[in-house]
Amino acid sequence: MRKSFEVVVIGAGPAGYIAAIRCAQLGFSTAVVEEWKNDRGEGKLGGTCLNVGCIPSKALLESSENYERLAHKFGNHGISVTGAKIDVAKMQARKDKIVSELTGGIEFLFRKNKITWLKGHGKFAGSGEKYLVEVAAGGSAEIVEANHVVIATGSTARHLPGLAVDNDTVCDNIGALAFNAVPDKLGVIGAGVIGLELGSVWRRLGAKVTVLEALPEFLAAADEAVAKEAWKVFVKEQGLQIDLGVKIGKVSRGKRGITVEYETSEGKRTLDCDKLVVSVGRVPNTRDLGADTVGLKIDERGCIEVDEYCRTSLPNVYAVGDVVRGPMLAHKGMDEGVMVAERIAGQSGCVNLDTVPWVIYTAPEIAWVGKSERQLKAAGVAYRAGQAPFSRNGRAMGQDETAGFVKILAEAKTDRVLGVHIIGSHASEMIAEAVMALEFSASAEDIARICHAHPSLSEVMHEAALALDKRALHS
Amino acid sequence: MRKSFEVVVIGAGPAGYIAAIRCAQLGFSTAVVEEWKNDRGEGKLGGTCLNVGCIPSKALLESSENYERLAHKFGNHGISVTGAKIDVAKMQARKDKIVSELTGGIEFLFRKNKITWLKGHGKFAGSGEKYLVEVAAGGSAEIVEANHVVIATGSTARHLPGLAVDNDTVCDNIGALAFNAVPDKLGVIGAGVIGLELGSVWRRLGAKVTVLEALPEFLAAADEAVAKEAWKVFVKEQGLQIDLGVKIGKVSRGKRGITVEYETSEGKRTLDCDKLVVSVGRVPNTRDLGADTVGLKIDERGCIEVDEYCRTSLPNVYAVGDVVRGPMLAHKGMDEGVMVAERIAGQSGCVNLDTVPWVIYTAPEIAWVGKSERQLKAAGVAYRAGQAPFSRNGRAMGQDETAGFVKILAEAKTDRVLGVHIIGSHASEMIAEAVMALEFSASAEDIARICHAHPSLSEVMHEAALALDKRALHS
Repeated sequence: MRKSFEVVVIGAGPAGYIAAIRCAQLGFSTAVVEEWKNDRGEGKLGGTCLNVGCIPSKALLESSENYERLAHKFGNHGISVTGAKIDVAKMQARKDKIVSELTGGIEFLFRKNKITWLKGHGKFAGSGEKYLVEVAAGGSAEIVEANHVVIATGSTARHLPGLAVDNDTVCDNIGALAFNAVPDKLGVIGAGVIGLELGSVWRRLGAKVTVLEALPEFLAAADEAVAKEAWKVFVKEQGLQIDLGVKIGKVSRGKRGITVEYETSEGKRTLDCDKLVVSVGRVPNTRDLGADTVGLKIDERGCIEVDEYCRTSLPNVYAVGDVVRGPMLAHKGMDEGVMVAERIAGQSGCVNLDTVPWVIYTAPEIAWVGKSERQLKAAGVAYRAGQAPFSRNGRAMGQDETAGFVKILAEAKTDRVLGVHIIGSHASEMIAEAVMALEFSASAEDIARICHAHPSLSEVMHEAALALDKRALHS
Repeated sequence: MRKSFEVVVIGAGPAGYIAAIRCAQLGFSTAVVEEWKNDRGEGKLGGTCLNVGCIPSKALLESSENYERLAHKFGNHGISVTGAKIDVAKMQARKDKIVSELTGGIEFLFRKNKITWLKGHGKFAGSGEKYLVEVAAGGSAEIVEANHVVIATGSTARHLPGLAVDNDTVCDNIGALAFNAVPDKLGVIGAGVIGLELGSVWRRLGAKVTVLEALPEFLAAADEAVAKEAWKVFVKEQGLQIDLGVKIGKVSRGKRGITVEYETSEGKRTLDCDKLVVSVGRVPNTRDLGADTVGLKIDERGCIEVDEYCRTSLPNVYAVGDVVRGPMLAHKGMDEGVMVAERIAGQSGCVNLDTVPWVIYTAPEIAWVGKSERQLKAAGVAYRAGQAPFSRNGRAMGQDETAGFVKILAEAKTDRVLGVHIIGSHASEMIAEAVMALEFSASAEDIARICHAHPSLSEVMHEAALALDKRALHS
């Protein structure tokens, strides 16, 4: 007899595993189909985020940041050392241990919540009274039944046509997180979040990094002032080489590396590098899903069509995370996972895409929530802006992290906060206050009136709110 | 002719300088009386906080934290060094530079806002149509007139009877921030914020630190669970020696140090140390203020009596910061400074003492806002508690900072958040979200429903809010 579940989740990344846990909490018999295997061939939960995304990159960012601080900042504190060295294998082992603890943690949570892990590739095999989901692994396949299906198949790195990714010389996120030595010269195609984070890791450890970006503008998704400050710090101060408006030409592999021919507005150039990272966006995983078998609608960008509650074109089928519209951010997918589980249970969960924070884990970090100036201008919204730098903040000075600023945008007429943009140390944590402000429709004056601990970086948020009303106290 | 000002502020610490800047912004002719001199005899603005408090301690905490991480944590990242050394003079020079930049910044702000700095000791010299304030320096004195007076004279370290502080062998905060070498053995009397922070600095740099606390309970001001976790980390893991319920006996100075005889419940003990820090609280500075001359009321603890708007017993005389009731925290004083300036201008500023955050800058940091369990029990409030650890948080694991937790307390009936207690890395920044939650009367469910960036430490806040409703996703 076929196994039957009230809910089958396809994909055990953040959106999927959270959907499953919440479904189980709400009393549904729940299974998750997941095929991911690590490089030792072991099945692992957690998806891209835990295995080859957010988590391992943050581990390497921390290690490399420590190394760079040791080299460039510790002297100023009176700390001297001789012979600082980085053992890349040990750094990677630490990263692997963190990944393994966290993915093992999801396994524990699955057992605890009595969630069945169906190991293999999941796809629709039919529908009738229930949905049929095929789980294929190692040449054989099993069909299970589901009353509800949650698709959380995530996304995969986009590759460039004609440029095969071998994850040795030419890498996507998977290979770029696993280098066993610091490359002398690293090329990165794509100056998005992943390109900047991984470029930063290897630059800090000694690689000469060149980033090639097709768009003529740097960090077009961020607020312009933030992008400008990021350019100043990354390129002019840290020595990251970034070429914009690049058209990639011929890429040829030699004995010892790879050569990229490309064109910018200034003419033809050539980049020789030992390793090349391709980080030009991510593609929703909808190809081997059996969508046609059940008539599931997929849009022209390859995303599964959903409404605001992540309901697909099929009854009782939901899709969450990178595989649907909206930003490809783990926390957005996790919140969708909770929403969908609660909706299956007849509750009223919802996700506000307007208050999902963005974070780029460079140094300084970049984080924002809500609208940028560009978006407000395009929408014809009259606004006021307030900006305050970290350079005069006592905590930032104490931490030797004075680059960047906080910028708050509020509606001119009502003073309601519409966007908060941070470039600075710990922006990833500071943004939490801003998200809450947006959720409560706070005014800039609310932020200005709320007590902020001294000394803390969050005083700069306070000061930016004051600046918006032209009454900054420290400028 | 006497100089005359609409507002005279006595004291240029955070509460005073902010009051002055806001008064000047609002169009008042403003003067500030400040007598502080640094150890080179130069007059400096900024008070205890900038000169010998929050700011220099954070600089030393960062330096010593870097040193400790290098010694104990970098190896795990694959970073190896030989011959790590700390040059205390250089560390102190960095600290002095930060202090000097910030105090110089206040001077700049005074010039920019056309605030007059009256150098000397300020006190009331009389009152009639206007208040008369005497400014005494170097044997001579000047009398100035003021329509409004703001008293922001701050506080001074409490000393122990019979134990003279020379700030060489026996030190308060001033001396303990200025050691020119790491003492072998450091004694600290008082396990409050200052004792723990400065004890941490010198322990990390190699001192054997023993803290003697009169109270039988550790960190009685904090939530009990936080205090318990802090004890575990500081004492059992970091090796800080803390004796509680201590009665200090004879303290004798020898040739090479100092000997403290004391008694605990376990009997008589002796502590030999090279340096002794006395950090047993702070006393409001009201002694040489001429309070009697004008009939200003001072309460039995030495605080100037004020109402909720910091109005004293005298018309047009306000008092703010450490010299009045409420926690001796710089940000509380700063907010009072703004309030008073705006009230002088006929506006309606106010300060909510219930949402003033507390921070202790140890490692892990401790921060809280609102009520502790003990306070809620004492008040007979029915509450629910939710707690989540950093140990399962991906960002915390990436940063090697997995100690501690977030605990949220909410009213049982309404789910309104009444207190948030954090012990963990970057608690000082995470508390900003909690303060905003309290200010907006958020429910725990609000925090649970608000999107938190992944991976970030603030996800632990989210998880604690879920735990309160017994639906934590990661435990």
